[in-house]
Amino acid sequence: MTIPLILDCDPGHDDVFAIWLAAGNPALELRAITTVAGNGTLVHTTLNARIACTVAGITGVPIAAGADRPLVKPLATAEWIHGENGLGGPELPEPTVPLDPRSAVELMADTLLASAEPVAIVATGPLTNVATLVRDRPDVLDRIREVVWMGGTTERGNVTPYAEFNAWVDPDALAIVLASGIRFTMVGLTVTHQAMVTDAVRDAVAGVGNRTGAFGAELLDFFRQMNQLSLGLPDGPLHDPVAVAVLADPETVGSVFTRLDVELAGTETLGATSVDLVGILEREPNAHVALELDVPRFWRLITDAVATLA
Amino acid sequence: MTIPLILDCDPGHDDVFAIWLAAGNPALELRAITTVAGNGTLVHTTLNARIACTVAGITGVPIAAGADRPLVKPLATAEWIHGENGLGGPELPEPTVPLDPRSAVELMADTLLASAEPVAIVATGPLTNVATLVRDRPDVLDRIREVVWMGGTTERGNVTPYAEFNAWVDPDALAIVLASGIRFTMVGLTVTHQAMVTDAVRDAVAGVGNRTGAFGAELLDFFRQMNQLSLGLPDGPLHDPVAVAVLADPETVGSVFTRLDVELAGTETLGATSVDLVGILEREPNAHVALELDVPRFWRLITDAVATLA
Amino acid sequence: MTIPLILDCDPGHDDVFAIWLAAGNPALELRAITTVAGNGTLVHTTLNARIACTVAGITGVPIAAGADRPLVKPLATAEWIHGENGLGGPELPEPTVPLDPRSAVELMADTLLASAEPVAIVATGPLTNVATLVRDRPDVLDRIREVVWMGGTTERGNVTPYAEFNAWVDPDALAIVLASGIRFTMVGLTVTHQAMVTDAVRDAVAGVGNRTGAFGAELLDFFRQMNQLSLGLPDGPLHDPVAVAVLADPETVGSVFTRLDVELAGTETLGATSVDLVGILEREPNAHVALELDVPRFWRLITDAVATLA
Amino acid sequence: MTIPLILDCDPGHDDVFAIWLAAGNPALELRAITTVAGNGTLVHTTLNARIACTVAGITGVPIAAGADRPLVKPLATAEWIHGENGLGGPELPEPTVPLDPRSAVELMADTLLASAEPVAIVATGPLTNVATLVRDRPDVLDRIREVVWMGGTTERGNVTPYAEFNAWVDPDALAIVLASGIRFTMVGLTVTHQAMVTDAVRDAVAGVGNRTGAFGAELLDFFRQMNQLSLGLPDGPLHDPVAVAVLADPETVGSVFTRLDVELAGTETLGATSVDLVGILEREPNAHVALELDVPRFWRLITDAVATLA
Repeated sequence: MTIPLILDCDPGHDDVFAIWLAAGNPALELRAITTVAGNGTLVHTTLNARIACTVAGITGVPIAAGADRPLVKPLATAEWIHGENGLGGPELPEPTVPLDPRSAVELMADTLLASAEPVAIVATGPLTNVATLVRDRPDVLDRIREVVWMGGTTERGNVTPYAEFNAWVDPDALAIVLASGIRFTMVGLTVTHQAMVTDAVRDAVAGVGNRTGAFGAELLDFFRQMNQLSLGLPDGPLHDPVAVAVLADPETVGSVFTRLDVELAGTETLGATSVDLVGILEREPNAHVALELDVPRFWRLITDAVATLA
Repeated sequence: MTIPLILDCDPGHDDVFAIWLAAGNPALELRAITTVAGNGTLVHTTLNARIACTVAGITGVPIAAGADRPLVKPLATAEWIHGENGLGGPELPEPTVPLDPRSAVELMADTLLASAEPVAIVATGPLTNVATLVRDRPDVLDRIREVVWMGGTTERGNVTPYAEFNAWVDPDALAIVLASGIRFTMVGLTVTHQAMVTDAVRDAVAGVGNRTGAFGAELLDFFRQMNQLSLGLPDGPLHDPVAVAVLADPETVGSVFTRLDVELAGTETLGATSVDLVGILEREPNAHVALELDVPRFWRLITDAVATLA
Repeated sequence: MTIPLILDCDPGHDDVFAIWLAAGNPALELRAITTVAGNGTLVHTTLNARIACTVAGITGVPIAAGADRPLVKPLATAEWIHGENGLGGPELPEPTVPLDPRSAVELMADTLLASAEPVAIVATGPLTNVATLVRDRPDVLDRIREVVWMGGTTERGNVTPYAEFNAWVDPDALAIVLASGIRFTMVGLTVTHQAMVTDAVRDAVAGVGNRTGAFGAELLDFFRQMNQLSLGLPDGPLHDPVAVAVLADPETVGSVFTRLDVELAGTETLGATSVDLVGILEREPNAHVALELDVPRFWRLITDAVATLA
Repeated sequence: MTIPLILDCDPGHDDVFAIWLAAGNPALELRAITTVAGNGTLVHTTLNARIACTVAGITGVPIAAGADRPLVKPLATAEWIHGENGLGGPELPEPTVPLDPRSAVELMADTLLASAEPVAIVATGPLTNVATLVRDRPDVLDRIREVVWMGGTTERGNVTPYAEFNAWVDPDALAIVLASGIRFTMVGLTVTHQAMVTDAVRDAVAGVGNRTGAFGAELLDFFRQMNQLSLGLPDGPLHDPVAVAVLADPETVGSVFTRLDVELAGTETLGATSVDLVGILEREPNAHVALELDVPRFWRLITDAVATLA
């Protein structure tokens, strides 16, 4: 029994690996890809999703563009990490896979309605599209198996001292999705910073030997450099595919069920994800929060998936 | 050359060890003790400061009571950790050392003016008294060598997910002291959680063999239990004396000079100390932030100090 | 040349008169009615819109239901003014006009696209639907002539001391619509409190002599009572049709072009509309703000419109 | 029976009239003047208080300087209204009355303790000094008859759309004084904007015929001009003496006992005074809020007081 999923993403280097893991892992069945502004503008993230599929030979998965900015806040992008086109490093081919004419929310809703079983949504960017689906399409919400989101943190942030980028870009969207009551898993920096792209990881991806692996290795080279320059991280964490791994192989990620709130008002801490790990606030738990990664098992998932692609 | 200091505290178990370290360390000269509401009400914290001196035979150090509540917020205390009287555990003797009739701010100002060299202020509670001094006595500020404060965190908090107790009780006071331009060192949970009271630590304190050591061991027994019950910490951190150690033996604590801001507006994150460790905000550095503790060296400071006392 | 318009509303007593003015005024051409949660729940406001048309014999104007709650905040309704069903007072007939199966945003977009000239949107409830259109349908925005909104205030509020109900229910929606750059007119309490339903007004509506006038007079009786009880207002202001009057007869309402911002963060003032009437903030003007009403001219518009209906 | 009072002020044109009314009204006995930064810097406001007394021949009233900035926020002054020296217009004489060496809080406390009856505090600037007294001197609080404060508004502000200057400069101080439980009267813009300096008022002050009246008329000329230029007000309101009038002749001012809260967190509305005139929030009343002024009676108080001076 495979798990059907929709991947909502903003590629971005690590989103590309999320797409490849979702398409290449045998436990998953990638039904649709939707894009959102975040790491880059919507034009770039949408183009990059199509490039990621083109490189890896992923065809037959519809790709639709969604929100070009957060719900309420103005857009901020992360070109300082991902480069001007959102996918710095390798030479980018012209995409050969088409863009679906539907909006992201329409494609999500159609995909949910067309499925016999509930479909998971994995989101690896700001939650703007998912929040819009939650608000605009109450008729399809019971078709959502769960939402797994790369974003937030239980400790320090990466865009301000306490806020992670995807949460900070659209904190209102996170608040909406949390309030929906849909099963929610947060895969934040606490766990994604365990997915460090070491030399060995980079070489293992290159060593797969196919076109996807070669392209992926170039992405990793660029991404590691930028993380070193901007955040002082030694190797650079590959955030987004960890959220896909939660579905592909639940044993890879250890999580707790606890309370998650998002700061909507602070001047220094806007977008901080307040996770009450010890129950000090005495509120109802509302989210699964990933804390630990089985690192070798995770990278094996990645290289195995890459090996199934072109 | 010893360093003269004023200790502003809210005993509390760990404040007692801060008093003892300040009084018993040969590099320091404890000139005054002032008290503030925080771990307990002002009545309790003031009584407990006198008890801490009485037990240890510390005489001749004036003790004055200060603010009975934060500058703007209502008072919240930490009886869940320190017990109803703020010093749960041992049987408490009647204090024999007197209470100075001056207010905390008056005693601080008089002590600063009476000293030939600049005097350090070590604060181990909410910064209410220090902020009041900063505001009310501009004439004495150039007599302050520096402020070293136990409070804040660079990671998670202990009273909400992102706020440490002393910062959260009086965030406005922290903002005032930060804005004063006086040299400031934050000794937060990041470093004090390295000062864990293990069985070995507790036994070493008891093993000093004097009255102070015996009383101290009883304090540690209670404090460890409460930390285990409330916060799920295995041993319990002895926060406050780490701030004294910064002065007593600077090699004990490793710190960085960076940007510190306090959240005054958030609904989930009020009182969070936003420390920009990697310079992502591109603001001027304004605080030394302690990050690392030489653990054996720290505990040796404690037991050595206890050994000089009664 | 008539002005085509879409009326987005949450009936509510005063919304009913807005519908009647939009349908009965010869300068206007009512193309669609959309409903939103606000004065009552979406079920009630949608039913009430259909009842308002049924009573007045308005047929051929599609009515579609929109958002059942604000974008981010939880829903609050105003049953204390409008009664449990949102339309307290008269006996309510079964509606005979149908509900359009499209969503409010779909109906708005289709109406905009189908029109040769730009279409105005008059909103008399929380701006949730309009904000969703702004966000989801960039393709139709240049078909919007302008947005005229009943909401906000330049002085005191009616749900908290400084917030008006429609602004307070969905302040995020207001922020989104303001940021869109579409021509925007705020018709707030400052001007709508000049539209007081005196005995003479009530009698003039009843005196029209048709079914609509009789039903309207019963609505006014109830609404006046509730305003007296809840807000201590002597007669009760008929807010919503003033926004329609801005289009129907621009001479009725005097306004200024100035700066409007909405408070998204305050604890006491959430949803306050901060209108800089004297330019003290030195920001760019972004909104027309109605300040003065030609009271007799306004009521004549109302009774004239009622007279054209059933 | 006269009412003894302390006047805490930040002259400022209108504060000068507050001093004169407090000194010249037979129902009042001015025991002390304390100064605070607000309309101008502390250096200017203190000098101006001494000038006001020198011009009017007020001797024997001690004048002490207080806070040079708000409790937590940085200082903002109102030179755009009061001119660079805080008292634009007339040529300013050298003051001949001395400065008391005590701090404002010490002088307040000494004055309270020395009085047989409770002493009123009238504050016509930011509440920084009064809040500091409330916090630092619990021993004297039962000697305070009441606090009457010029500040706040129930409608629009004068420094942002919803905040009045004195409230906005130090909102934390207002929160502290409100929380103290001392009887509190807010005399805000709602009532002070009824005290408009018309030509007739200006001429009546000049027409008193003494030195104080001549100096006062020059102050009024300048102040009216600046209010016209900056705020578009036709005549300019003489805010501060209205607070003194509440004590001098209670019939002059009509007020209600209601709920007053101050916004400490908003981005657009910081310092707004949220006054719940109709009880919509269902909170406990905590303040007398002045709403109406007997205008002729007020100006008669002013000219009568000026006539008693030099």
